[in-house]
Amino acid sequence: MFPRLSLLHVWFKSAYFQRLKALTPEENTRSQHGLFFQDGQRRVDYVLTYSVKKSSGSHSTRQSVHLLTENVVTRSFRHGPQSGGEKLRAKQTQRTKDSSSVHSSTVIDMELGCSGEIFNSQEDQKAFRREEFEGKLRDMGLELEKDEDGKIPGVYFVKIHAPWNVLCREAEFMKLKMPTKKVYEVKQSNSIVEKISTLISKILEPLHPHVEEHQPKNVKHLSHTFSREKQHLICMNICIYAFLAGITSLLGSGVYTAAYPLHDVSMVNKGKTIYTTVSICVIKMIFYLFPRVFRKYFGEKIGLYFAWLGLYTQMLIPASLVGVIVFLYGCATVDDNIPSMEICHPRNNITMCPLCDRVCSYWKLSTACGTARASHLFDNPATVFFSIFMALWAAMFMEHWKRRQMRLNYEWDLTGFEDEEVSNNTTDHPRAEYEFKVMQKSLRKRQKSQDKVNTLYIEKLTFQDRLPAYMTNIVMMLLMIGVTFAIVFGVILYRISTKAALHMSSSLITRNHVQLTVKTTAAIINLVVILILDEVYGAVARWLTVLEAPKTDKSFEERLIFKTFILKFVNAFAPIIYIAFFRGRLVGRPGSYLYVFDSYRMEECAHGGCLMELCIQLSITMLGKQLIQNNLFEIGIPKLKKLIRYIRSKQGAFQEEERQKKLTRYETDHFLEPFGGLTPEYMEMIIQFGFVTLFVASFPLAPLFALLNNIIEIRLDAKKFVTELRRPVAARAKDIGIWYNILRGVAKVAVIINAFVISFTSDFIPRMVYQYMYSPDGSMHGFVNHTLSSFNVSHFQDGKEPMDPSHFGYPVVICRYKDYREPPWSNTPYELSKEFWAVLAVRLAFVIVFQNVVMLMNDIVDWLIPDIPKDISLQIHKEKILLVELFMKEEQGKSYIIDSSTSTDGKENCSKHNNNSKVAPPRSRRHTNSTKSF
Amino acid sequence: MFPRLSLLHVWFKSAYFQRLKALTPEENTRSQHGLFFQDGQRRVDYVLTYSVKKSSGSHSTRQSVHLLTENVVTRSFRHGPQSGGEKLRAKQTQRTKDSSSVHSSTVIDMELGCSGEIFNSQEDQKAFRREEFEGKLRDMGLELEKDEDGKIPGVYFVKIHAPWNVLCREAEFMKLKMPTKKVYEVKQSNSIVEKISTLISKILEPLHPHVEEHQPKNVKHLSHTFSREKQHLICMNICIYAFLAGITSLLGSGVYTAAYPLHDVSMVNKGKTIYTTVSICVIKMIFYLFPRVFRKYFGEKIGLYFAWLGLYTQMLIPASLVGVIVFLYGCATVDDNIPSMEICHPRNNITMCPLCDRVCSYWKLSTACGTARASHLFDNPATVFFSIFMALWAAMFMEHWKRRQMRLNYEWDLTGFEDEEVSNNTTDHPRAEYEFKVMQKSLRKRQKSQDKVNTLYIEKLTFQDRLPAYMTNIVMMLLMIGVTFAIVFGVILYRISTKAALHMSSSLITRNHVQLTVKTTAAIINLVVILILDEVYGAVARWLTVLEAPKTDKSFEERLIFKTFILKFVNAFAPIIYIAFFRGRLVGRPGSYLYVFDSYRMEECAHGGCLMELCIQLSITMLGKQLIQNNLFEIGIPKLKKLIRYIRSKQGAFQEEERQKKLTRYETDHFLEPFGGLTPEYMEMIIQFGFVTLFVASFPLAPLFALLNNIIEIRLDAKKFVTELRRPVAARAKDIGIWYNILRGVAKVAVIINAFVISFTSDFIPRMVYQYMYSPDGSMHGFVNHTLSSFNVSHFQDGKEPMDPSHFGYPVVICRYKDYREPPWSNTPYELSKEFWAVLAVRLAFVIVFQNVVMLMNDIVDWLIPDIPKDISLQIHKEKILLVELFMKEEQGKSYIIDSSTSTDGKENCSKHNNNSKVAPPRSRRHTNSTKSF
Repeated sequence: MFPRLSLLHVWFKSAYFQRLKALTPEENTRSQHGLFFQDGQRRVDYVLTYSVKKSSGSHSTRQSVHLLTENVVTRSFRHGPQSGGEKLRAKQTQRTKDSSSVHSSTVIDMELGCSGEIFNSQEDQKAFRREEFEGKLRDMGLELEKDEDGKIPGVYFVKIHAPWNVLCREAEFMKLKMPTKKVYEVKQSNSIVEKISTLISKILEPLHPHVEEHQPKNVKHLSHTFSREKQHLICMNICIYAFLAGITSLLGSGVYTAAYPLHDVSMVNKGKTIYTTVSICVIKMIFYLFPRVFRKYFGEKIGLYFAWLGLYTQMLIPASLVGVIVFLYGCATVDDNIPSMEICHPRNNITMCPLCDRVCSYWKLSTACGTARASHLFDNPATVFFSIFMALWAAMFMEHWKRRQMRLNYEWDLTGFEDEEVSNNTTDHPRAEYEFKVMQKSLRKRQKSQDKVNTLYIEKLTFQDRLPAYMTNIVMMLLMIGVTFAIVFGVILYRISTKAALHMSSSLITRNHVQLTVKTTAAIINLVVILILDEVYGAVARWLTVLEAPKTDKSFEERLIFKTFILKFVNAFAPIIYIAFFRGRLVGRPGSYLYVFDSYRMEECAHGGCLMELCIQLSITMLGKQLIQNNLFEIGIPKLKKLIRYIRSKQGAFQEEERQKKLTRYETDHFLEPFGGLTPEYMEMIIQFGFVTLFVASFPLAPLFALLNNIIEIRLDAKKFVTELRRPVAARAKDIGIWYNILRGVAKVAVIINAFVISFTSDFIPRMVYQYMYSPDGSMHGFVNHTLSSFNVSHFQDGKEPMDPSHFGYPVVICRYKDYREPPWSNTPYELSKEFWAVLAVRLAFVIVFQNVVMLMNDIVDWLIPDIPKDISLQIHKEKILLVELFMKEEQGKSYIIDSSTSTDGKENCSKHNNNSKVAPPRSRRHTNSTKSF
Repeated sequence: MFPRLSLLHVWFKSAYFQRLKALTPEENTRSQHGLFFQDGQRRVDYVLTYSVKKSSGSHSTRQSVHLLTENVVTRSFRHGPQSGGEKLRAKQTQRTKDSSSVHSSTVIDMELGCSGEIFNSQEDQKAFRREEFEGKLRDMGLELEKDEDGKIPGVYFVKIHAPWNVLCREAEFMKLKMPTKKVYEVKQSNSIVEKISTLISKILEPLHPHVEEHQPKNVKHLSHTFSREKQHLICMNICIYAFLAGITSLLGSGVYTAAYPLHDVSMVNKGKTIYTTVSICVIKMIFYLFPRVFRKYFGEKIGLYFAWLGLYTQMLIPASLVGVIVFLYGCATVDDNIPSMEICHPRNNITMCPLCDRVCSYWKLSTACGTARASHLFDNPATVFFSIFMALWAAMFMEHWKRRQMRLNYEWDLTGFEDEEVSNNTTDHPRAEYEFKVMQKSLRKRQKSQDKVNTLYIEKLTFQDRLPAYMTNIVMMLLMIGVTFAIVFGVILYRISTKAALHMSSSLITRNHVQLTVKTTAAIINLVVILILDEVYGAVARWLTVLEAPKTDKSFEERLIFKTFILKFVNAFAPIIYIAFFRGRLVGRPGSYLYVFDSYRMEECAHGGCLMELCIQLSITMLGKQLIQNNLFEIGIPKLKKLIRYIRSKQGAFQEEERQKKLTRYETDHFLEPFGGLTPEYMEMIIQFGFVTLFVASFPLAPLFALLNNIIEIRLDAKKFVTELRRPVAARAKDIGIWYNILRGVAKVAVIINAFVISFTSDFIPRMVYQYMYSPDGSMHGFVNHTLSSFNVSHFQDGKEPMDPSHFGYPVVICRYKDYREPPWSNTPYELSKEFWAVLAVRLAFVIVFQNVVMLMNDIVDWLIPDIPKDISLQIHKEKILLVELFMKEEQGKSYIIDSSTSTDGKENCSKHNNNSKVAPPRSRRHTNSTKSF
């Protein structure tokens, strides 16, 4: 009755690791306790847990289940045996039936309104399903052992052992690639680069963490699809990649409470060795060891995550180097910068228009000296170079990742493995929630027309059924984005109003520190809001996706990731985008300022340009997010939990600790957190990638901070996976899936955003325009004066002029403000001047040139770097030839014995067996199961 | 001695078709003559031809060959038997040795300086190689028949027949997918679209060309890798896709003069039926029938070409429809267009500055009325819409092609077939030219150090060896592009000088028709130059690629295509790009015009804007190219040849015609042109695609012309392939290769070019800017006046003012010219005005918005349309399940009989056979050949 047979695959994965381990000596006998069945021989490959409360069975529900089951079967027969496809359909139907039976019983019971009976009947139902399921497992050749007298009250364990022949059979069925006995030498390339890297690694050898590698480096095992016929070619060191399917719905319906393979103590220790080693060649470690070790232990999916993180971190090294150099260049040239010199020069004491209405007075430009000098650090010609560099860097990263992925696919023998194969097993069957919704729908219909029960079975959700969920999704997404914008606007209002309030303060010290106070508090508020909303949005996205009820697990994951990404991305970058592109642009001009709520003037950037402010906001957000989210949350909270537990146990009783010690391995693992998927890890890194690439023009130190964070992050992740989470079921994956597309998207957007940051946020273009179009001597002298427009103070609106006009001891007639507008004495006073349009045109032209040049360069990089590394493609070629050779030998040997006469009269031979295909009766394990129900 | 065994594959392909044919009745007995061996039983699958001149053998060369051969063998042994890779190496070496023996003998003979002996020894050598090769073929199980007394003097034929069992063996070896006997029903989708299309095709049924289809539509054969063990599952209707390799170098060295499979008369007739049917549903035909019929006859590569051409033509239908609508919209609104109304209105009689120095006088704007009205046809708001539409159209085309390709791959059972497999067989072995160069190099080295012969064998060409070729390539490419630009410039000069000369003419009629005469002649000159250069560039590209000596055929083809594409593309589009973006922009202004050679003013566009001129140039180039190149060259020249032949035969002798009738099929085919690859066909279409997409903003009728051309083109191509060329060897291909990338590149460039055409070439942006920024009443009234700047005639340079200033009867003080410049009475007379910068900024902003919006929409299209059609992916899935089921049954049936005890103690079973792999001796056909030489 249980078609979720691919659950079987789960054990194969873990069983493989257990087999591997069986060869190494057991160093820790205490924790070995519980790794074997009672006979001490058979290893525990997988554990299922469930909780039971004693109850008396009621048969009413089971009856209703059977009723429904019958309907389904009838229906699937009504559809009639269609050529070929019927078995597929039967399987599908049965699965639907199966899980629907759970839900339907619940629903029907609900309608009966008898809560006590529900409980009992549910428990009964669960026990019944467990029995059935376990019986099925035994039929498939697995060995089970129940642990009814565990030390944890109310929790029961089912330990499962998969015998070797079951593994073999399953591996063959799955057409897994295995390393064969045949070993061939991988040719070492003789390039100089290789030699240097070998030399370096030799020098650093003693510093490497000591993780033994069993396999010599230059030797590779030939891999081929597992086949029992060719068993003698295949090493014992097989890799069985099996997929978990169906168990989620069993877990979801409460039949089992948990399902996990056991942690392997020697691997845990090895993992600890790695992540605790403070090695100099940290990069070598995270880049080479992590993916390989973790892949062996957790499967390709997690291995790929570490490989990706490793490559990303590795690629951050050159980026942060260049970033530091660019920053240092800014520091070095700060004294040669003519515009900031002009601002700071006391002679050029330009009187500026007031920064706020009434309370603020005119001010001297030389007071902005510090800001102007500081902004040069981030706003200099090297920045342009750096953002081109980073755009190319992102392209290179993508290309390298493709290559690395290819290389890992080859090393891990995934080259022939198709994604489709995964989807067949794990992700293509409907999710429990989806089936539940379908069930609900058919029940509703059934109620409406009581007599036509049989005809009203509903197969799938139509667009109409989903419409409310879709609408909710769209509305909620827009609402959430609206909330983000509202908060950004709120922070702006906070800044404006606080500034105005503080300006009005009588205390001189308060007034002097207005800028600092406002900026700091606003940035902190922003950060806190981002951190809170991040959590909220994560939950909202999950809720929305559940509401949407996608059919398969894969589609669920993709939709969830997409929503979460959109929300978190908007959340993280909305304030930054505001500062980069809107702040200071919607100010208006003296005499006709733009007001918010009729009283607050929109905020301006400091005289150095908005790039400086952007940089501050960016660094605070990025550093704050990383420090708080990654480090505090990931280190601090577990530490705190431990501390609390410690205090509790002291005042409580020591027996808890005692009991902990006596617990078997499978009981210890039961207390760990379940593995929640890689989405949060990837998401964190993608947002960071956004910080590194999107606004890198304004903050060249971003890659450095990211690098430092990642070196910590990678260790924390490793620790978390090894010690704090239940061992996840090994999943096979060929690539990082949707994340690659998101990365590409971010890299594409980065090009445009950087183009705009350079041309609009920075003063690069106005400087260039002045130097080449307006400067009388081709130098930057006079640039500051050129960028300032004049305002006749008599044109101030009533009630907006400064209260203290003679602040400097003389009456101000003309004040200056930063804009390109006509002077008061022109025919069209305060209109945008020709310079404005010229600068705008050049800015836009720069965007076009930058974007297209960078895109072209990206395409060239894409074209120059082949997706498959040359040595890998050569090796794949070589392997193929060797394999053909190997099997030709085999075939030859066989054909001599069995059929030596087939090739003499081939033509007849080709056709004469044609009618045999229907003779052999079906007796495949997989299909007998699905056909039994008929 | 001949390792080019994959030549064998050639016959399998053709043999397959012959087998197919064997089932259909032979309607034409005359042309059947020569289709069989003398026994009338064995079919001729493939033909090799060679020419022999009687000569006496000389043994000197053969000796030298053996000397060299020995060296090679010694060397390959010196390298030592390396694990696994040795056979590969041996094969490689042998191949090198093999072809090098030809060249080396030539080279050595050359050095001996004895030309007579060369001839004889060469003939001798060829005969020797032929004997050896044919012996080898017989060893492989093929049957050969020589036709020594043919009717064509000096030409000898070797007819080859491949017995069925050889085909079976080879098919298995190649792991070809075959349709099995197992047929399953393809579920018809019930969507409304499908129903409508079925209805339509039913209605049009009688109009379809009558080409029978043997296979019912809704049924598909399960396909699986060919295996002799599973032979009984496989239909007789097998498809053997075999690849030609090595024969090129045998042909190149003159051992054979030609190698081709025979044309199949019934297929030829069927093909004729198709391409001669003047059917209403021409599209259905080219879209559905051509690819399928031609794929069956010529293999997937040509099938894919027709499928691509079909899809392209099909996609052109909506494009040309929209294009016509846009054009009609222009026609309909021409009378409502305010700017042209203003120009034509006699009241607005604006005096314009003279169009040329001295001889031209002032002119009235109203004389430009006609041009202004005409230019509205192509320069109206609908144009913007159309170019966005076309950019999306290109993206859709790409996406649809991906889907179509996937569908065809599925239908043609190529889904599991990897490109790599092709490259292994056909394209991965070094080309003869490459080997010759390597040989030359090693001979040079050998001469330098006579004693160290053995150590100086050179394996490959280094970058240093190739440097001269690379340099020549770069220089020549730049030179060729330079030539193109020079010619464009020459035509410009022609236009300028002719115009000036004609203006000076005393005849009024001449002067009145200046514009027309100059434009027409210039466009014709341009066209002729393009046509001539196209041929020249094709030759140059080939020569350069030969010079470069790429290692493999694949790389040769790609490099050739790349070079040819660059040169032809530049050639076709350079004049157009000049008109679109440079003409009229480098004019200067009255009083300071820009002069070429100090005397000729740069040319301006007519008052309607350059878009009109661009349109004229584009249509002349495109139509001219298509009419002349495609139709005249492809229809006219063959007809002419036929005519000449007919005249000759009349005055000559009738026996020629008589003999022609008596010729066997293989002799007739020998007189046809050899198949030269698909490159010219694709290239022609890609250039056309460029015309359709790149400047479509200026010429909305381009898709229509392309469509009309293609409907003719596809028939001409079909005719050419079926009747005028030797039957090409069927080649397997999964995609259209480098062409897809080129198409993508063109589509990408099209977005940018269209953005620039709309914003810079057309008057769209100035109109918008005027309407929304400057117009007093928000209408277009006054636009013409706004775009004209004023010039004070007293500011003319000396000697440049018009000779006849009082042309209109009154002295002109202020004349107007089209530009945004300050008036003479401003502070900065004739400087670019604020309006100029404002318009420029808006133009650039439009480019950015257009480019990014279109790119985003392309990405969305890319994302929305799945690469694999849903029904195909479902079917692939279903097929897989059915196949597994089928083979499970098989296995089950077998395992009952043979090994019923294996699964009881699996673990031992897994390991106990491990050492058997070395037992069976190698006796594979493929590898015995390569090992024999040791």
